[in-house]
Amino acid sequence: MPLSEPEKIEKIVVPTFAAASRSAPLLLQGVSITTVLDSSDQDDCAMFQVAGQVDLVWGTDYIRGPKFSLFELGHLSLYDIGWYLAGANLSDIAAMGAAPIGLVSVVRYPKNMDDESFKLVLEGIRDGCSYCGTNNVGGDIGSAERLILSASALGAVERGCALTRTGAKVGQLLVLTGHTGLAGAAMKAATSGRAAVTDTEAFRLSLKKWKHVEPRFGHARVLARYARHVGACLDTSDGLVGAIEEIAKRSRVGISVQESMVPVHPAVTELAEFLDSDVSTIVFGDSVDFELLFTVDEEVVGEVTTALQEKELECFVIGRIEHDSGLRFIRTDGSTSAMPGVAWRH
Amino acid sequence: MPLSEPEKIEKIVVPTFAAASRSAPLLLQGVSITTVLDSSDQDDCAMFQVAGQVDLVWGTDYIRGPKFSLFELGHLSLYDIGWYLAGANLSDIAAMGAAPIGLVSVVRYPKNMDDESFKLVLEGIRDGCSYCGTNNVGGDIGSAERLILSASALGAVERGCALTRTGAKVGQLLVLTGHTGLAGAAMKAATSGRAAVTDTEAFRLSLKKWKHVEPRFGHARVLARYARHVGACLDTSDGLVGAIEEIAKRSRVGISVQESMVPVHPAVTELAEFLDSDVSTIVFGDSVDFELLFTVDEEVVGEVTTALQEKELECFVIGRIEHDSGLRFIRTDGSTSAMPGVAWRH
Repeated sequence: MPLSEPEKIEKIVVPTFAAASRSAPLLLQGVSITTVLDSSDQDDCAMFQVAGQVDLVWGTDYIRGPKFSLFELGHLSLYDIGWYLAGANLSDIAAMGAAPIGLVSVVRYPKNMDDESFKLVLEGIRDGCSYCGTNNVGGDIGSAERLILSASALGAVERGCALTRTGAKVGQLLVLTGHTGLAGAAMKAATSGRAAVTDTEAFRLSLKKWKHVEPRFGHARVLARYARHVGACLDTSDGLVGAIEEIAKRSRVGISVQESMVPVHPAVTELAEFLDSDVSTIVFGDSVDFELLFTVDEEVVGEVTTALQEKELECFVIGRIEHDSGLRFIRTDGSTSAMPGVAWRH
Repeated sequence: MPLSEPEKIEKIVVPTFAAASRSAPLLLQGVSITTVLDSSDQDDCAMFQVAGQVDLVWGTDYIRGPKFSLFELGHLSLYDIGWYLAGANLSDIAAMGAAPIGLVSVVRYPKNMDDESFKLVLEGIRDGCSYCGTNNVGGDIGSAERLILSASALGAVERGCALTRTGAKVGQLLVLTGHTGLAGAAMKAATSGRAAVTDTEAFRLSLKKWKHVEPRFGHARVLARYARHVGACLDTSDGLVGAIEEIAKRSRVGISVQESMVPVHPAVTELAEFLDSDVSTIVFGDSVDFELLFTVDEEVVGEVTTALQEKELECFVIGRIEHDSGLRFIRTDGSTSAMPGVAWRH
C-alpha cells in the first residue's frame, strides 16, 4: 500500500530534496541570491532574497516522460525521466547565459504507483538539478490518472548579459557546444524494431543524451562574460536545423554551414550505418541533445574558445552568418545544398 | 483542421497574451521589476530586470482541469479552467503577501482540439492573470493525449515582509478574508445528482468560486505592510479546517474558533439545506475558496481591519491562538467540540 500524500511529502519528498540549497547563496557579479524557503519548508511558495541589479530568466517545460517511446520500450527508467525533467527545464536557463537559482516541479503520480518508483522519479529530479549545481526548491505533489511531469526553472544573469534568440549579425561565426544527433540516433535505433542495434555500445552511448541531460551551464556562463560579442543563442532542443532556422528567421539573416566543420560523433556514424540512414539527416534532425548554438563576433572567437578550453569545454565553429538570406549547406566536395534534417514539430 | 503548433503560437498564443506587460514595471518599496521578455518574444525564457533588495516567491500548481467533476458535468467551461489555472497559481503568491510578477503556463492540448477551444483556455489564463494585474509571460505549448494544464507563478515582496505558514503566536487573533464553503457546496450540489439544486441562484453564486478564482492580492499587500505583526498566513486551498490544522501544527500552538464569528454565506446555508448537509461541515471542509487565513497581533487588528476597509476589503476575526494545544470549536450555545469538516487529502 503506497504512502498517503502527506506521508509521501514528509517521508520521501522532503528528505530527497533536503540538499544544502540554503547554505550557498548564488553569487553573481554585484548580486547575491539566497534561498530562504525550499522544499523542506512546504510553504505556499519557495522564497529567495535578491540584493542588487540582476536579470532573472524563467521558463517552464512539460515533458512527455512516461509517454516517451524510449521509456515505453524500457530503455529509460523512472529515474531517467526525472533527470530529464530537470535537465530540459534547466537547459532553457543555460540557453539564456544564466546561472540556475532552482527548479520547482510538478510530480503527479497514479495512485497505484509504489513508493520506490515515486522516489526514483524524485531522485532523478534531484540529481539532474545537482548536476547543474542547483536544487529542487518546491513543487506540486499529488495524484493523477498517470504519471505527469512538469517543471519550471528560474535563473539569474548579470544585468545586460542575457543571451537571447535574436541579434545574430552578418559576419559572426556560428558555434555549437557539442555533438548533435546522438539523441535522435538513439530514438531511431530503439524504434527500428531491430534488437541487434540496441545491443551496441554506440546505442548505449547515444542513449546517455536521454538518460543524463547535461545543460550547458559551463559554456553558458563563459558566453555571458562575452555577452556583447554574442549574437543569438539557444539550445538545440528542436534539433540542429531547427536552431539554425530559428536564428536565421529571428535575425533575418542567411546562414552557411560547412559540412566538414560539423562534429559527427562516431556512435552516430555507426548507428546510421546500422539503420541505413544518412548521417547528416540525423546530425541536423529532430534530436534533443540540449547543446547550445550561438553566434559570436569573429574577432573574439579565439578568446572564447580558449576560455572554454580552460574549463575543458569544447566548441565547434560550424558556419557563418551571411548577408544573403537563405540557408546554405556547403558539402565537403564543395557543392551547396539545402540544410539536411527536419526540425521537431515540422 | 486545427492549426499546427507553430501556427497556434503565432496566431493564438502571442496575440492572446500580448498584454501591456512591458509597459508598467512592478514597483515595490525601493525596488522595481521590469518585464523584458514575455510571451511575444518566444525566447527560451521570459526575463525580468530586478533592481534593489527584494524577496522573490515562486510556486507551481498542476490543476486537474478537464478532470474536475464540475467540468465533466458541464458546469465549467474551458475558459473557466484556464482562469482557474492562473488563479490557483497566483493565490500561492498572494498567500506569501507578495505582488505577482507573472505566470508561465503549460498548455498541452489533444491533437483534435479545435482552435476555438484552445483559444478559450488561453483567454481564461489571460483574464485570470489580468484580474490580478499581471500577465502570462511564457510557457510551454504542445500536444498531449488530453488537455494538460500546469503553471508556475512568481512574485515579489519587500525584503523581510513575506508571510509564511509558520510564526503564529499565542494571543494572536485568527482572521479570514472571506466566506469559505462556497466552492465545496457547489461541488456537493453538482455531484448530488439532483438537477433541481443546480438550477438555484445559490448554486450559480457558489459556482463563481470555481469560475473566477480571485486570489486575495488586495488583502495580501495590506498584510505585507503589517508583516511584523502577522504570524502565519496561507490560503484555504485545502479547506478552512485544513488551513487551521496547518497553522496549529507548524507553530505548535492551539487554536480556538468561535462558531458565531465564522462567516457563513447564505448560498451555503441554502445549498446545505437542499442537500440535507451540516452547514459547518461544508464551511470548514474541503472547499477551494482561495481565501487567506492569517494570524495577527491583537493590538493591530483594528488598524489592519481599517486599512482593509479603506480598500473595500472585508475580513473576519474567527478565533484565537491558544497556549493549550489542540483545536477547539466553540459552538454558539457555549459547548466545545472538535473542529468540523475534513481537509482535502485526508
